[in-house]
Amino acid sequence: MIILGIDPGSRITGYGVLDVSALRPRYIASGCIRIRADDLAQKLAQVYAGVAELIIQYRPGEVAIEQVFMARNPDSALKLGQARGTAIVCAANHGLPVHEYAARQIKQSVTGTGAADKTQVQHMVTALLSLNARPAADAADALAIALTHAHARTGLLGHKERRRRRSRGAGWRDFRPES
Amino acid sequence: MIILGIDPGSRITGYGVLDVSALRPRYIASGCIRIRADDLAQKLAQVYAGVAELIIQYRPGEVAIEQVFMARNPDSALKLGQARGTAIVCAANHGLPVHEYAARQIKQSVTGTGAADKTQVQHMVTALLSLNARPAADAADALAIALTHAHARTGLLGHKERRRRRSRGAGWRDFRPES
Repeated sequence: MIILGIDPGSRITGYGVLDVSALRPRYIASGCIRIRADDLAQKLAQVYAGVAELIIQYRPGEVAIEQVFMARNPDSALKLGQARGTAIVCAANHGLPVHEYAARQIKQSVTGTGAADKTQVQHMVTALLSLNARPAADAADALAIALTHAHARTGLLGHKERRRRRSRGAGWRDFRPES
Repeated sequence: MIILGIDPGSRITGYGVLDVSALRPRYIASGCIRIRADDLAQKLAQVYAGVAELIIQYRPGEVAIEQVFMARNPDSALKLGQARGTAIVCAANHGLPVHEYAARQIKQSVTGTGAADKTQVQHMVTALLSLNARPAADAADALAIALTHAHARTGLLGHKERRRRRSRGAGWRDFRPES
């Protein structure tokens, strides 16, 4: 199972690709889709084409993206929304489920604290994926989003597995009514 | 030549289709794409599919959309941006040029004043297109956007035509050097 993490922006869209088939997530690829057009429609077409290319190349089964709770100002929120909507609809048009994670949740999952800064996130992504070099900021953010989803998936599986084992366990032990 | 006007929103996306082949724009269709999904990715996929359906059905040559200068708050700006980006990228993916017009410009073009209210816009759209009934607010806004683009196109053509005639006129007149 391949996971595609996306960190959309009006100028640069970071991406990170992880293989989560094994117990530990394995790094596949990361980088940035750089937008070069001046015209808004052409900019968004480049984001769409870039995400579509990643989907075709890496064949992810799930997409993870940062949830935006509160943008700084209405103008940047509109621009971010346009790029974000484009990336999400591209994934949806390819039949992929899109999972959203809050910034705090991503920092918590990767560094252990929701108040971590960009450098800490970059450092921990490098360590967790045993990378030889620190990925660029946008790529690191996208990898952190993908890692968060990998952890959340494992958490869910772990929880289900624990429930399955508990219910099995009940069958193994003799039932002793309280006296 | 067919023009598609789009008024995107996070819940309802209005549309208006005009034929601008003749001197006066002719009404073809208008209505709303209503979003029924709960999931953001599915919502945006419905906007994209709705716009794609309109493009396939009416075969527009150009798309017009309202330019957003200042949204009310960051949260609604993000939601509007997502729907707006989706509609724009759908048009761009179908090879259509997207023209943007500011709200003031649309009101000015349709009612003669940039300070007109929704009812005035609805009233003037009904009158200008000789409609039998007033279209719903979202459809009327989309028709107003399409009408603004129709007027701007005619204005451009008129300007080019005037230049062509002026340059021809210079050929007709004798050249008299200043003495």
